[in-house]
Amino acid sequence: MDFSSKLLEQAVDEMSQLPGIGKRTALRLVLHLLKQPESQTEQLAAALQKLRSEIKLCKNCFNISDTELCDICANPNRISEIVCVVEDIRDVMAIENTAQYRGLYHVLGGKISPMDGIGPSQLTIKPLIEKVKAGKVEEIIFALSSTLEGDTTNFYIFRQLEETPVKTSTIARGISVGDELEYADEVTLGRSITNRVPFESSMKG
Amino acid sequence: MDFSSKLLEQAVDEMSQLPGIGKRTALRLVLHLLKQPESQTEQLAAALQKLRSEIKLCKNCFNISDTELCDICANPNRISEIVCVVEDIRDVMAIENTAQYRGLYHVLGGKISPMDGIGPSQLTIKPLIEKVKAGKVEEIIFALSSTLEGDTTNFYIFRQLEETPVKTSTIARGISVGDELEYADEVTLGRSITNRVPFESSMKG
Repeated sequence: MDFSSKLLEQAVDEMSQLPGIGKRTALRLVLHLLKQPESQTEQLAAALQKLRSEIKLCKNCFNISDTELCDICANPNRISEIVCVVEDIRDVMAIENTAQYRGLYHVLGGKISPMDGIGPSQLTIKPLIEKVKAGKVEEIIFALSSTLEGDTTNFYIFRQLEETPVKTSTIARGISVGDELEYADEVTLGRSITNRVPFESSMKG
Repeated sequence: MDFSSKLLEQAVDEMSQLPGIGKRTALRLVLHLLKQPESQTEQLAAALQKLRSEIKLCKNCFNISDTELCDICANPNRISEIVCVVEDIRDVMAIENTAQYRGLYHVLGGKISPMDGIGPSQLTIKPLIEKVKAGKVEEIIFALSSTLEGDTTNFYIFRQLEETPVKTSTIARGISVGDELEYADEVTLGRSITNRVPFESSMKG
């Protein structure tokens, strides 16, 4: 693209570095900002800068938090002996939305993915193992997405925990509520049959 | 959405004000920035702020420009007697890409759209009429998109120019090159028959 303005070109270039935003979309977004009052651009820029420079991670669960200890870890009503291992804050938000879980979380910050250059040392696996070895945890629930990277990460952590007495579990895989059986993939359908549950317990959720 | 961090919430809120970006996408973009080096966020914020505060419009054609007079208006090889009326800089870029047009532009900055609260006074229609009345323009080419708002804007300007000797034209509407006839809408197909051109001249483009 040939821009008549260097300023415009720079703004579009920076904007198009965001994932899923190409040059055309970036130009549309930037032109939109130019039509809005200057304060909107100021506020967007300030919010991004402030977030990036002041953001903290909870020292216990590594979730994004404004305080040293996040609201969930600081809540005395949560069951601190159960820890749910998730990838990032979006998973925490999704599980919290169900209002079914009363334990704590441990945010890994990603999944082991050699293709993207992410190894175990870039994730918060070490503090998790230490937490378990300190004897504070009774059950670890793996809630990573069921992909090659997720399974690898689960298995890597599982191996390190084998010598500890901690109980490990993983969230149930099966047919989504409301889904038609004929459209389910065979792996999911197979697992849902293998891991079938007593009919009475299926009535509770 | 319930955020564990006010800083995160603010950044997501500001990001989701951009057109076509919902809360979920905004969260994905903001989390991406958190994973990148701090310098990327700094550069994005600085580029947006600089653009918004320092941007200029060419004093002749009102296109976005870093200088008082844009490169096109300042080019002595362009035919200054022909002026193409467009909506915004994207249209200028699209027409420039064809390398078929040697005249100048006039950027309106939008279309007349009572639904969005945009009237003639918010667009650069007045300077266009003044330019024509000063006798500097021989031909006006309307190149707004063929929508209700575009047609209204064309007609509004056309009416104001009726008493001047300026020639007015509009870009040709017809079947796109490479399109199949059976899929064309009837209005376009009808216009393409009414405005048929001598076969020899169709061989040039």
